Amino acid sequence: MKILIKNVDIVTMNEQNQFYERSNIVIEDNIITHIGDIGDINKNKVDYEIDGSNKLAMPGLINCHTHLGMSLFRNYADDMILSEWLTKKIWPAEAKLIAEDIYWASLLSMSEMIASGTTTFCDMYFFMDQVIKALDISGMRASLARGIVEEDSNSIYKIEENEKLFNEYNDSLNGRIKIMFGPHAPYTCSPEFLLKIMDSASKLNASLHIHLSETRNEVEESFRKYNKSPIKHMYDLGLFDLHTVAAHCVHIDEEDIKLIKEKNVHPVNNPSSNFKLASGFSPVNRMLKEGIKVALGTDGAASNNNLNMFKEISMASIVNKAVDNDPMSVTALEALNMATINGAYALGLEKEIGSLEIGKKADIIILDMDKPHLCPRNNVYSTLAYSAYGSDVDTVIVDGNILMERKEFKTIDIEKVKYMVKVNSMDLLNNR
Amino acid sequence: MKILIKNVDIVTMNEQNQFYERSNIVIEDNIITHIGDIGDINKNKVDYEIDGSNKLAMPGLINCHTHLGMSLFRNYADDMILSEWLTKKIWPAEAKLIAEDIYWASLLSMSEMIASGTTTFCDMYFFMDQVIKALDISGMRASLARGIVEEDSNSIYKIEENEKLFNEYNDSLNGRIKIMFGPHAPYTCSPEFLLKIMDSASKLNASLHIHLSETRNEVEESFRKYNKSPIKHMYDLGLFDLHTVAAHCVHIDEEDIKLIKEKNVHPVNNPSSNFKLASGFSPVNRMLKEGIKVALGTDGAASNNNLNMFKEISMASIVNKAVDNDPMSVTALEALNMATINGAYALGLEKEIGSLEIGKKADIIILDMDKPHLCPRNNVYSTLAYSAYGSDVDTVIVDGNILMERKEFKTIDIEKVKYMVKVNSMDLLNNR
Repeated sequence: MKILIKNVDIVTMNEQNQFYERSNIVIEDNIITHIGDIGDINKNKVDYEIDGSNKLAMPGLINCHTHLGMSLFRNYADDMILSEWLTKKIWPAEAKLIAEDIYWASLLSMSEMIASGTTTFCDMYFFMDQVIKALDISGMRASLARGIVEEDSNSIYKIEENEKLFNEYNDSLNGRIKIMFGPHAPYTCSPEFLLKIMDSASKLNASLHIHLSETRNEVEESFRKYNKSPIKHMYDLGLFDLHTVAAHCVHIDEEDIKLIKEKNVHPVNNPSSNFKLASGFSPVNRMLKEGIKVALGTDGAASNNNLNMFKEISMASIVNKAVDNDPMSVTALEALNMATINGAYALGLEKEIGSLEIGKKADIIILDMDKPHLCPRNNVYSTLAYSAYGSDVDTVIVDGNILMERKEFKTIDIEKVKYMVKVNSMDLLNNR
Repeated sequence: MKILIKNVDIVTMNEQNQFYERSNIVIEDNIITHIGDIGDINKNKVDYEIDGSNKLAMPGLINCHTHLGMSLFRNYADDMILSEWLTKKIWPAEAKLIAEDIYWASLLSMSEMIASGTTTFCDMYFFMDQVIKALDISGMRASLARGIVEEDSNSIYKIEENEKLFNEYNDSLNGRIKIMFGPHAPYTCSPEFLLKIMDSASKLNASLHIHLSETRNEVEESFRKYNKSPIKHMYDLGLFDLHTVAAHCVHIDEEDIKLIKEKNVHPVNNPSSNFKLASGFSPVNRMLKEGIKVALGTDGAASNNNLNMFKEISMASIVNKAVDNDPMSVTALEALNMATINGAYALGLEKEIGSLEIGKKADIIILDMDKPHLCPRNNVYSTLAYSAYGSDVDTVIVDGNILMERKEFKTIDIEKVKYMVKVNSMDLLNNR
């Protein structure tokens, strides 16, 4: 299959930040094989043409921290204190979740992500086989971990589940799936238990996805219990010797930042979730200035309450300026990097995705730029970071397959998905 | 003309926060005459029906602080220090503006606002006759002030212009226009000059629109020059004896809040602009808890970089929780109040607009709720504040006239507007 996207503006997000005006992209199977003038491309051999007039192509966005199943709880419990939110609302509801819930919630979440320009996500939850079933249908790319909370001595079965997931699914679906290990957090897993997870992951050469230093309480508790910060605690445990995606990193100090940099940990900033739960402000600009490739994520829809990376780009870039009292903090280009190439680095996929370059996988989004709020377009990066919305995304391609075209879903039966989510959510929250 | 919106969910934003599921609204001429069961409404006498299935009607949003003409500078100068932004980019560009620029920029801004659910705005700029010409075409509702900066002894002509505007246009276009006076700020107008403006406004019983306490520098300068805060300075001058809309109010203390409350000043929070310019965080929740009806605005597109009130609702509600370290700060309902009924109070129009009630003007927006990111809808206010986007707005009615239906502009030739803005912006920024 050979696809030509013609006459399109192209933001490559490559190292040189190359921008092409009214140019062309050729995709052969799942690979980008040409960017630039139409030249000697044999048009007769093109199977499918996409007209890019008044449109802009850029790398698909990479959402580095999600809990897809939680979309069932969207707008279910807001404006609450975190502890009450968890203990009175979210945990009791989660205890009643069944496999089918996760399947439909995952398809809904993928619909929302595709519609707003995300092509790859990094998920941690349970019933992960259902997420994989949904991923097979949707056509997205994902790094998936079994969320592992240590409850008692039997909890070891969760590590075994994660191992099984790896052995069955890692690199499957044409390489669209990577399996990671998902130790939930240092406050839900003991050091001994974490060592067991690390041992399993290490043997399989798998990466880790963990929550670190999300709230002030968590950090204070870590100091009380271990006399060190969560970051230092993980560092000393050797966890960072494995490739680690660290969600949140809100309450971190200069020493933590030094350790993150030294061990090439991949922090994921989740601005909307951190703001809405009153967790705080992550020192994003400080980390970026240290050369740390901070990635970006939405967290689950229960705490955001969207899975829209353009919203996060806007939050990360605009709000940090006020926090840092510096209008140059987290520039438009930096925020866009966080949502693309930095996310690729976080998932160890920087050679495959995160920028539009010849030889990389064809994960491409096309925005309709012909809107009042995108006019005039005096600077393309500012336009994308400060003025564009997820709803401007018109067409989405992952691994060379068109998942949405002119806003129409090509792989997901969206009417059925919305219906099934409403039915399951109502049953879960009212009847079970 | 009699319009029936049938089978629609209705968020009234009235004092009792009434919500109707799958109900009906009748509009006769420019007035809401019925909300509720279809009952004995004679359907034969309805001139036009709007099907509200899977949709939600709510009051049109009120954007209480704008500079429409500045949309020409959208994304023109970002990630810069405020003083450089103003002196090197914005002011030199503004000096070259001609009437035609403002006309087209105003129509573009109105298009963006209509498309994202705003029905009323409060603008301060110059060439205001051009804004009025555009308003006549667009069909929106507005409170307009001539922005008055004191440059030299000749600046009195600006006050005269504002007076002339009032005499010619106040209450015109079926009452859709109110004229206010627009003293720019205490740091651009001397006390003597402000007294002249107050005298003119007072004689005409007109309201004021002014910038107050936007930046830390401004407040420090006020203390150096007058030994008091900008708020106290205005209070002592008697400015607050007139109905005053005070944009920003970012750097205010407890004493300022007391004065704002005492004098029933109407603060307008502009979160995106305040964040992006690194101005700071306004104590919105503190004011709301004092019973102050804080309104909401976008500011100009040069500093936002949108004119989208749903974005501001999200920013105001989500970010203040982190600032206040309190997940209950600025609740979903409070943020929606800021964008509707509080805005109506700010403009002295609380008896006419700001909520859907029988006898009020028919300024109504209808959202398409059939979207993945709005599913499931566990709580309607959370859904609107935390999950909905401006792009979910489907249909917009102002003063009983349909300005947008199923996303199609009914009063504005949008293709011509975008073209003319691009031409004028390019000429202004590159050639003049």
